[in-house]
Formats: sequence, C-alpha cells, structure tokens
Amino acid sequence: MATIIKKKKGIKVRKGAILVVGLPGLGFIGRIAGKYLVDKLGGKKIAHLVSSQFPPQALITKKGRIRALQHVFYHVKLKKRDVLVLLGDVQPLTPEGQFELSLEIVDFVMKLGVNEIITIGGYATNRLEGNIHVLGASNSKKHKELMMKAGVLYGEAKGSIVGMAGMIPALARFSRIPSTCIMAETHGAIVDASGAKRVLEVLSKHLSFTIDYSDLDKAKEETEKLINKIEEELEKQQEALKEKNKAPPSYIR
Amino acid sequence: MATIIKKKKGIKVRKGAILVVGLPGLGFIGRIAGKYLVDKLGGKKIAHLVSSQFPPQALITKKGRIRALQHVFYHVKLKKRDVLVLLGDVQPLTPEGQFELSLEIVDFVMKLGVNEIITIGGYATNRLEGNIHVLGASNSKKHKELMMKAGVLYGEAKGSIVGMAGMIPALARFSRIPSTCIMAETHGAIVDASGAKRVLEVLSKHLSFTIDYSDLDKAKEETEKLINKIEEELEKQQEALKEKNKAPPSYIR
Amino acid sequence: MATIIKKKKGIKVRKGAILVVGLPGLGFIGRIAGKYLVDKLGGKKIAHLVSSQFPPQALITKKGRIRALQHVFYHVKLKKRDVLVLLGDVQPLTPEGQFELSLEIVDFVMKLGVNEIITIGGYATNRLEGNIHVLGASNSKKHKELMMKAGVLYGEAKGSIVGMAGMIPALARFSRIPSTCIMAETHGAIVDASGAKRVLEVLSKHLSFTIDYSDLDKAKEETEKLINKIEEELEKQQEALKEKNKAPPSYIR
Amino acid sequence: MATIIKKKKGIKVRKGAILVVGLPGLGFIGRIAGKYLVDKLGGKKIAHLVSSQFPPQALITKKGRIRALQHVFYHVKLKKRDVLVLLGDVQPLTPEGQFELSLEIVDFVMKLGVNEIITIGGYATNRLEGNIHVLGASNSKKHKELMMKAGVLYGEAKGSIVGMAGMIPALARFSRIPSTCIMAETHGAIVDASGAKRVLEVLSKHLSFTIDYSDLDKAKEETEKLINKIEEELEKQQEALKEKNKAPPSYIR
Repeated sequence: MATIIKKKKGIKVRKGAILVVGLPGLGFIGRIAGKYLVDKLGGKKIAHLVSSQFPPQALITKKGRIRALQHVFYHVKLKKRDVLVLLGDVQPLTPEGQFELSLEIVDFVMKLGVNEIITIGGYATNRLEGNIHVLGASNSKKHKELMMKAGVLYGEAKGSIVGMAGMIPALARFSRIPSTCIMAETHGAIVDASGAKRVLEVLSKHLSFTIDYSDLDKAKEETEKLINKIEEELEKQQEALKEKNKAPPSYIR
Repeated sequence: MATIIKKKKGIKVRKGAILVVGLPGLGFIGRIAGKYLVDKLGGKKIAHLVSSQFPPQALITKKGRIRALQHVFYHVKLKKRDVLVLLGDVQPLTPEGQFELSLEIVDFVMKLGVNEIITIGGYATNRLEGNIHVLGASNSKKHKELMMKAGVLYGEAKGSIVGMAGMIPALARFSRIPSTCIMAETHGAIVDASGAKRVLEVLSKHLSFTIDYSDLDKAKEETEKLINKIEEELEKQQEALKEKNKAPPSYIR
Repeated sequence: MATIIKKKKGIKVRKGAILVVGLPGLGFIGRIAGKYLVDKLGGKKIAHLVSSQFPPQALITKKGRIRALQHVFYHVKLKKRDVLVLLGDVQPLTPEGQFELSLEIVDFVMKLGVNEIITIGGYATNRLEGNIHVLGASNSKKHKELMMKAGVLYGEAKGSIVGMAGMIPALARFSRIPSTCIMAETHGAIVDASGAKRVLEVLSKHLSFTIDYSDLDKAKEETEKLINKIEEELEKQQEALKEKNKAPPSYIR
Repeated sequence: MATIIKKKKGIKVRKGAILVVGLPGLGFIGRIAGKYLVDKLGGKKIAHLVSSQFPPQALITKKGRIRALQHVFYHVKLKKRDVLVLLGDVQPLTPEGQFELSLEIVDFVMKLGVNEIITIGGYATNRLEGNIHVLGASNSKKHKELMMKAGVLYGEAKGSIVGMAGMIPALARFSRIPSTCIMAETHGAIVDASGAKRVLEVLSKHLSFTIDYSDLDKAKEETEKLINKIEEELEKQQEALKEKNKAPPSYIR
C-alpha cells in the first residue's frame, strides 16, 4: 500500500493534542460532526493524505481543478488544548487498506504530539423515540471513565464496529494511546444531523468548548452533496466499465 | 501485509521451548485444546498479534471495551520445558496472508527460543464409531518418530491440510524447526470437545504433564460462544453491506 | 507491486522538460495523439516500463519475438524544450496499481528534469454536432491559465476522471508539478481520430510546434490494430481459463 | 509477496549455465519434459522455492510427511555445460504473483551463473495430423537464430503466452539474458507425452545430449498422478469451503 501524507511547513501542534476522526460511515455522523467542528472552531488544513487504497477517482471541481479522493487533517486551537480533526472522502477499498491506513494515521498523529483519539460513528438501532444516546467502546478503562463523564453510555453497544472508526482505537492500544469510538444511535439509512449534534455535545463537554448548532442542517446538506457526488461518480464509472468492457478488456482502458 | 506483534516486557522463555498452535479450524479442535491447555496449566499472556489480513472488525466487549480480532501468545512453564500456546480468533483472509503470517509466527517464536512446533487440527472422517485417532503429518522423519511415541497415527491422513495448521509445519522446515500437525478425527460440522480431548492426551504424553478433563465441556461452550459472536458479527456486517450498498458506494462508508 | 523501468544509457534530457501521457482510455484519444506526436516529431525510445500490475500476457510479434505488455517513454527534442511522451499498451489491473504506477511515473520523470505534465483523455458527451472542445482539469490555478491560452475549455468537464489520466495530475500536485488532464469530447465507443487531432492542436499551440495531420487516419488504424490484438488475446485467454478450469485448478496451470 | 528460496550449501554451478523451466501449463508439456530431463540426466535437487502466491495447501505424503506446494531447482552436469531445471507444482495464484515470481527466478539464477533461459509450454492447435512442430518466441534475434538451428519453428505461433512460460523470457530481456519459450503443438485438453518428446528433441539438439525416450509414458503417468492429486485437493477444499461456510465465516476457519 502506498500512502502520501503531505504536511504543510511550519505547523506546530502543542503536545497532548487530541485527534477527532470524522470519516464516512453509518448516517455520515462522523463526517458531519467533524466538518461542523472544523467550521465552527476555525480549523485550518495542515495536511493532505491520499492512498492507493482509495478508489482511483480524480474529482473535477467546479473551477476546473482536479483532486484525488483524500483525507484532510485540520488544526483547531482551543485555549487549553490543540485538536486535530481528520475528515475523509472515503474509507479504503479493502480490509487490509483500512488496517494499514489506521496504523499510518495513528503513527502520524503520535509524531505530531497527539495523546488521545476519539473516532465518531453511528450505531444502528430501531428504538429512537426518546433520547438519542451516544454509545461508546474504549480501548482502556481509564478513557472509558473519562468519556462517561462527558455523557457517553457504555454497555449498550453490542457486536462489533467495522471500518476505521473501530480499527483506529483498537490499533491505538498497541501504541498506548487512549482512544474511544463514540457512536450516536441512528437509523442507518439516512444522513443524520441529529446524531451529529449529540456527538458534538459530548465533544463540547469533553473538550470544554461551546458552539451553536443552528447551522447543522446546512452542514448536513453540504455533506450530502459531497457524498452524493462521490457516490454518483463511483456508480457511473462502474456502470460504464460494466457496459463497455464485459470481458477482460476491462483492464485495457 | 502489516502485522503487529506486541510482546510484554521482561518475558523470559527458556531455550528449547515448544510452540503449540490452536487456531480456528475443523471442529475447532485446535482452539478448544489450546484454550484448555492455557487454562489448566496456568498460561500467561505474553504477546498480542494483529494483522491487516484479519477481518477489519473491532469487537465490543461486555464491559464496553474495544479490541481487534487477534492472536494471543501464552506462556506455560512446565518443570522441564517452556510451552508457548498460540490462540487465535481467526485465520487470515487470504492465502497470501496465511502464508505470510505463518512465516512471521515461525520467525517470532524462533527468536524467543522455540525449537519445536505442534499445530492442532481436525481431520474429517465418517467412520467414528470406535476410537478417535489422532493423525499426524510431520515436516521431518525424526519428529514423526517422536510423535508416534506419543500416540500419533501416521499413514492414515491423506490429501492436504488447508490453512495455517498445515502451512506452519511446511514453512518451519525452511527454518529447520521440527514440526507436526496433529489432527483428531472429527465429523467436521460440530464443535468437537472429544477430539480436543484426544489431542490433549497426545500432548500430555509428549510433554509429560497431567491435567483433568472434567471441564472440557465448559471450554467447548466458551469456544462456541466466542466463535458464534465473531461469525455473527461478520455475517451481520456483510449482509448490511450487501443491502445498503449494492453498487460501488460499498467502499465509501 | 513490482515495476521495472529500464532506461537507455547516456540519455540526456534538458531541464524543464514536459511529459505528455498517452495511455489507453476513452476513445483511445491519448494513445493515438501520443503516438502521432512521437511519429511526427521523431521521438526516440529512452525507457521501457513493465509492471506486475499489467495483465500477465507476453505478446508474440510477427517476427517471433516476445514482449510483455509495457509502457514506453519517448524523447522528442523541440527547439526550445524537450518533450517526453509516455505511450502504454494498458493501464494497471487494479486501483492500487494505477495509483502506485502514477506515483512511480511522476517520480521517474521528475528525476529526468520534467517540471510539467499533460495527460490526454477523452470526455464522453452526446452533443458532438459542432466543434469538438478540449476540456481541462488542472492541479493548479497557474497551469489552468496556461492551458486556457492554448485553447482548453474549463468549467464544462464535470464529475471525475478514472484511471491514470486523472490520477497523475492529482498526485503530481503532491510533488508540486503543474499538471493538467486535457480531454477531447468524444462518443466514447469508437476509436476517435478527430478527438486526437483536437488534442494535438492544443499541444502544438502550447509547445509551439507544427505538424501536418494528413496521416492521422493511418495512426488511428495502427492503434486499433494493436488494441484489438491485445483485447483479443486477453479475451481468448480468459475464455480458455473459464472453459478448461471451472474449479480451483484454475491456478494450477 | 513473500518468497523463500532455500539453496543447499556448497552448490557450485559453472558459469554460463542454462535454465530450463518446466511448470504446469498447456498439456503439462513443460512439466513432463522437465521431469524427464532431470530423471534421465541425473539431476540433483539444489534449491526449494515456496511462495505466498501458491495455493495455501500443505500436501500430506504417503509417508506421513507434510510439504507446501513448491518449485524445485535441479542441477544437471553435462560435459560442456551445467543445466538447471526448474520444476513446479503450480503457478502463482495472481498475475501479480506470476510477474514477481518470474522476476525473482531470473534474479536467482543469474546469481548462480545462468546466461540463457528456455521455458517450455504447449501451443493449442487443431491440425495435429502430421508432424508436431515446436514453435518459438524469443526475447532476442540472436537467441531466435540459435533456437532455429535446434529445430524450432518461428512465425507460426500467434497471439500471446499466458503465465510464467511467457513472462520469464519477457522479463529476462530486462536483465539482458537471451531467452526463448518453446512450445510443442498440442490439443490442450490432455496430458501430452508426444509434445514433451518433441520438446526434448529440441533441447537434446541444442544442448548436445542424447537420451532414450522409452520411459516417457511412465513419466507422463507420474505427472498425471501428481497433478491429479493437487487438483483434487484444491477442488475438495474449495467445495468444503463453499458448503460449510456460505457467508463471511469462510475466513474464520
């Protein structure tokens, strides 16, 4: 696997920073919450990441620019602490890619001074009448206790977590970085701004910041637009491939 | 392929140790027998192994903790000799992964001082009225003779062995480590505690230890529970993937 | 991934050279235009590239020679500037291969002194009555402006570009090499010499050379012949594989 | 990809040796001819090769031994020249594996002093009434001329060669080792001793040795037995996998 991480020059992150990971996943809760965090707290791009494990699409922007599908690291300076936010267009194509990229991200942020990681996900559930809970799964007892203080509920999430939201905390344990995956309960099939809000409330308590939530719906729409564009492109291309090249020539062009 | 093996500090294994490998396989005989050995002989965890070739699931435990699918090395100190036991949740996803992980395990235990390896498997057969035999396939004539003394039957197992229980002895030959795959006859479709018992009898004779077998059924149940949980999660996720993402977006989330 | 690039000895490329990439793609426009450039401007082979990511076919030539599917770098010396042209039989089999090969190509030509890259593609469209436009997507604002002067239209191409024609400019950004993918509008299903001509006009303006276009149809036919041969071989073999080996033995022979 | 080549100690190969490659392929001509060469000229095993790209089967022998699917290098000392013969159980599972293993083999034998490589294959044809021709495809003009003197026919073989019999000569060109793939005409569907004989005649002329062909049918039968065993095992296991594990658990055991 080939991964390129290009960091801007002269970036200084205070030691003891926290990484918040917002990748596409159930309900796109992580993506929305991460994006909102960056927008509201004034995050600045500090690094781009591209990987051979992402779909080989180069997106054309409105302005006629071209860019690969990517992950971007943002830098937010809170009073007490620096926060890195990782936003991604996609997750790697293969299990192996998800594992290796998780490792590389943990390694990269450790070197930048990060000593805590929170990943954001959604947790599919059918009972969603009352309160939306934020469920947690932690890679250490100590971090679990910290997250409980921020309102995360334990013991409710069952089963397993697929993708990098689960893999990053699981692998961070091997580098002794306390880490939790926080998951808002969600229906699963929709892009879910309410779940994102609940996750942001947990983060605001844990990191002692305040933001207003009035633009969340706009953030949701923007996320939907980006995701739809990417999905559409992937679909279009796959169909084109299927149609034109039924047989081996698929790998000629 | 990326593999991480995290060894606890200060571990001392006496030279001339033996590795016993208990991975999921036919009848889960290796997994049950390995687990029982660790429990009854007081094995201690000395190393964790995770691999990009395992399914990218992070299991949520009852206590709200998160962990990757993994292999664990245990350390058992018998009077005369140290025994390492390798227990695993899964085998790698691909042939390539099984080969490479087998190599890495042989390499890792060699450095720890291991000079003999026994892997445990099941051998599918229909005639199971009378005695359950333990069949063998060895990577050296000398080791075959040793295992015959411990009650292993040769010449009956035919064909080939898939997965790491066969690959480890085959590759250990390239490092000149004598190694045998011992296989209890089994029906194949069930989780088989009787087969595990027969394998344990061979090991107890070969390694000169005694254990009682009264808790084997409990060990079987625990193994079943773990395996069921893992299988269930893998199934659930695959179905979810299929349903939600029929087309390329499968790799978006 | 294994890639071999074999460069002829004693090649000297002037600094500030440009790479033009003509790989198989929509309408085979890049392949035709690149080939024509090489023929008309007197390009000389300076390097061969083979990759484990190409289909494992060894082509038999009419003279009884054998060669792997390959990419070839040609060297054209214009008065003011050196031009490298990359022509390829195929694109890599996998997304991962396309990404990694794009990286390796950018790296290779950088070392040769290249500081600008133009990749050629086709853009599928239904309205093709009037003028055929050459659309662009650039990895920098500055390069976009340069290409506009050469007649490239921006803002019309939408969506995304699959394969190396898009991936090379996207990754070249990480090495700060200005790069654009220029795409002639085309039907998509045919081998398109008209599109190739339009692209060549853009290149001739950008690089200040003049060529006559009278042999373009011959170039088209040659391209068609080569492509047909490769596609035919790939198809034949895949069918043979399917027929003869329905089950696992497929990987015996 | 992981490949292990274990060479016996103290092997001395005279410079200017030739490698003859007999891998499973069309009509198993290469495998039979290579084996017969080793048997009749008294070849000695000098190296074993195993690869993560071979199917992960460990074969159980009649004597209760276990071995991975492998390639074996034999050493034949003719008066004038040393001959290495490579015999293999299988070819790698993937295109990428075939490419990389071909590279590694070329590299390995170069270091041993080899400066010429002949690979053996079959060429499927329907007209087989009269003489069986041996067709050739060479990676250099000079080697083609040499092989013509030994009775190889050029200009008849068309299309392409799949697998390592074609890939090795194609890649040997990058190391400037003259190499030809010689192919006996064959029906394709049968294990073909007549084709093997024709290829051996070419080799005996090219390398100036004489052998009798009276045991060729026995060699054919042995090859058939081995191949059948391997195919059978691969099939059995794949069916077992399909039946037992319909869903994801396929990678649990």
